[in-house]
Amino acid sequence: MSDTVSPASTTQPTTDQITNQATALRQRYGFDMPAQGPWNDHLALLLSHRSVRGYRSDPLPPGTLTTLMAAAQSAATSSNLQSWSLIAVTDPKKKAAFAEIASQQKHIEQCPLFLVWLADLSRHQRLAEQEAVSLEVLPLTESFLVAAIDAGLAAQNATVAAESLGLSTVYIGALRNDPEKVAELLDLPAGCMAVFGLCVGYATAEAAGEVKPRLPQEAVLFHETYRIDEEEKLRHAYDKRMATFSKRHEMQVDSWTERVVRRLRSVERIKHRANLASILKKLGFPMK
Amino acid sequence: MSDTVSPASTTQPTTDQITNQATALRQRYGFDMPAQGPWNDHLALLLSHRSVRGYRSDPLPPGTLTTLMAAAQSAATSSNLQSWSLIAVTDPKKKAAFAEIASQQKHIEQCPLFLVWLADLSRHQRLAEQEAVSLEVLPLTESFLVAAIDAGLAAQNATVAAESLGLSTVYIGALRNDPEKVAELLDLPAGCMAVFGLCVGYATAEAAGEVKPRLPQEAVLFHETYRIDEEEKLRHAYDKRMATFSKRHEMQVDSWTERVVRRLRSVERIKHRANLASILKKLGFPMK
Repeated sequence: MSDTVSPASTTQPTTDQITNQATALRQRYGFDMPAQGPWNDHLALLLSHRSVRGYRSDPLPPGTLTTLMAAAQSAATSSNLQSWSLIAVTDPKKKAAFAEIASQQKHIEQCPLFLVWLADLSRHQRLAEQEAVSLEVLPLTESFLVAAIDAGLAAQNATVAAESLGLSTVYIGALRNDPEKVAELLDLPAGCMAVFGLCVGYATAEAAGEVKPRLPQEAVLFHETYRIDEEEKLRHAYDKRMATFSKRHEMQVDSWTERVVRRLRSVERIKHRANLASILKKLGFPMK
Repeated sequence: MSDTVSPASTTQPTTDQITNQATALRQRYGFDMPAQGPWNDHLALLLSHRSVRGYRSDPLPPGTLTTLMAAAQSAATSSNLQSWSLIAVTDPKKKAAFAEIASQQKHIEQCPLFLVWLADLSRHQRLAEQEAVSLEVLPLTESFLVAAIDAGLAAQNATVAAESLGLSTVYIGALRNDPEKVAELLDLPAGCMAVFGLCVGYATAEAAGEVKPRLPQEAVLFHETYRIDEEEKLRHAYDKRMATFSKRHEMQVDSWTERVVRRLRSVERIKHRANLASILKKLGFPMK
């Protein structure tokens, strides 16, 4: 990599950059700001990420999709299997159908480009048929996991690429509310599942939002072995920070603990996602 | 995002940037170079990715791990559940044990920092016990998938961050050769699984390598619905490009089709990964 990155980016931060870094870390971690390390414009971009749920109707610059796709394909992929595909959706009717599946998330209809990321083993299955070989590994749970992670790495690169162009994004996991309906809308073959969607577009001023605080690093990052000794204390500190954040943004006080409990307490509100194990089999992933 | 990215990055590329973009796209796609879109230094960094399998012993700059972690935590996470954790490994004995699990991948021992990325629902389970609530959603296949994808998004941000600092990386999916042994080495609680590793360090000159070509965009990116009409033709074109690439790099001619077949033909060579479905249950993911 060293030949592609200017040496300046690996030196100690300048005074301006230190201000930028301190601000970025304070937004992400509040008072539990970790010690400062190296810094550059790429890191500033990564740390400034926000998920955006309101889009202007402005079209994307010509060639944007090609550029996002090149970034996505540049991510690592397990054994170069390239076990993912992408469907770009701009048809308003189709976007409306996805918004409905995703419990009426209006931003899916607003954004000019909706990307559906597929865990895709069907390409290898077709290759096997064309080459008259049998691929024992394809029906395994391992293979589905490889495909889902491949899709995740690719999508994250596309997200970083989009944000570098002044665009915003939000992942739509709620496409998994009804994977069979999504497969039908997109004519997906067996061995292919939409793992999540991604809205891409220009944020409205109201929706541009603020960087969301995360758990302190000490609660998520460990050295050599897993540790839980400080966890409960760190969670309560984060609860306070998230309550302040939610009050400022949503006019209600809501700690992280409350949100986690509400999100995970009951299978009722996650619709067909509760049946993913059986749905995967129907979609052509035997999960052996 | 628009306030955090300089307006210059969203304008049309300069002459220098166009040369850079054309080179980057040619390396990634060969003669099937897609039409050029917008371009900036962030995109140049993303497109220059290479997985590196040889590291110098040089230590990382102070604060690097903190910086990579801040980038990782800045990635989107489903419902802000933050269903992943990271273990940083520098202990030579532990790295040797991981290298052995991963079929003797020596770069795990060479790299100064080995990161183990965990799909982690154990934090929510502990929260549930501490708050005396029951979380019905945790045992679902859906929840494991959320955690694995969360880990993927976070790791990809850390990878981009590392490469922005002139460091190299390679993902180690072969940690899944023996997830139970990995769990033992890292003292992982139930509901926690190492989905992959990541070597981080400075590439040796010999290992720095060349950008690996990917399938043409038309084979992976579709519009509105899934399409396979051109697929076989596109695969054969890519086979030729990969054969040329492998001859140049590994002194053997090997098409993509041949590699896919060799990798997926038999469950023998993927060790315990063939038993992931039952291993997940043992590690505390009921996969309901």
